[in-house]
Amino acid sequence: MQIKTHMGVSLDGLVTSADGLPAWDWDPGHDGKSAPLGYTDFMENVGAVVMGRTTFEQGLPDWKDAWPWGERPIRVLTHRPLPDGAPPRVKTSNGGPQAVVDELKKSGITKDVQLLGGPKAIQSFIDADLLDRLGIVVLPVLLESGIPLFPVNATEFSREVWDKSSHKPAKETVRTMRLESQKQLEGRAVHIVYAFN
Amino acid sequence: MQIKTHMGVSLDGLVTSADGLPAWDWDPGHDGKSAPLGYTDFMENVGAVVMGRTTFEQGLPDWKDAWPWGERPIRVLTHRPLPDGAPPRVKTSNGGPQAVVDELKKSGITKDVQLLGGPKAIQSFIDADLLDRLGIVVLPVLLESGIPLFPVNATEFSREVWDKSSHKPAKETVRTMRLESQKQLEGRAVHIVYAFN
Repeated sequence: MQIKTHMGVSLDGLVTSADGLPAWDWDPGHDGKSAPLGYTDFMENVGAVVMGRTTFEQGLPDWKDAWPWGERPIRVLTHRPLPDGAPPRVKTSNGGPQAVVDELKKSGITKDVQLLGGPKAIQSFIDADLLDRLGIVVLPVLLESGIPLFPVNATEFSREVWDKSSHKPAKETVRTMRLESQKQLEGRAVHIVYAFN
Repeated sequence: MQIKTHMGVSLDGLVTSADGLPAWDWDPGHDGKSAPLGYTDFMENVGAVVMGRTTFEQGLPDWKDAWPWGERPIRVLTHRPLPDGAPPRVKTSNGGPQAVVDELKKSGITKDVQLLGGPKAIQSFIDADLLDRLGIVVLPVLLESGIPLFPVNATEFSREVWDKSSHKPAKETVRTMRLESQKQLEGRAVHIVYAFN
């Protein structure tokens, strides 16, 4: 069982526009109907889906009419009860990343688990060393405003800070990952998969 | 003549760490001495280099001992005189992107022009529709804090904004680009080149 993502990200690193619309919808080649780039391949070995509460609440109205997850069990990371209209195969999980992974294993899931998002859920799995594969699809668009996959503290160049710096990278302080694969999708996007240490 | 970049960028979109050290230096596989990934190939057809003043002032102390630009003319985008110690082949240009491109063409440059950075200089060329190729090398590291290649307005999900949204992407309002090439470099980084419209 691998925990893995397949996130559409704008070239400037956003997973949604400012109004919350997924970056996938801004893909210049997307017709507004078909599955996101690479999604069918990605879902092939996915046996369960985990997502944050915001992602679930945002998606539910669209999913109700045409449930995109088949028979797969869904776990929503939340402390509160689910909203009305959630199908019975959707359950809550309130113990954090390790608890939901343990519970899915216990329930007999052996295929991979899609971690759908959002960014906070993904970050919590990375922090818990539970994300096996970070898959992103870099879409050829700049959104400028929206929710970043990796929020950063944006700085400007400061001569004073630079002059005081050792000019040596403290490599042991930063998180690195291993490139597992990269390929272009439909001539316009780049699918990158990283393995975390 | 093409105006083109070759920027090392962390997976979280930063071109430097918080102290101003280039993302290249944080590449987990970089030994601190050799050229940045893909640089030798990139420079093959480069006949001149354009950079912002901050980039020049930051680089000059290192470059003085082993000038990395060969005989290529350098243009620094600035209104002020250059600091002491700038070699004679470095000249200032204060008329903006179009002026420096015109001047380089006039001076007989036919090979490509490297736009070295920083991000503000790159953005000014994009805004002026003068960047032909945006080349980035996505390095397998998260820096969390530093100078972003593309500064964004980071938002959080808002139920209120989402409920008011049309749920339709206003695609005509965002900048898109064409994927020209992508490949992995040394098994760890992804070199992506975009052509702007």
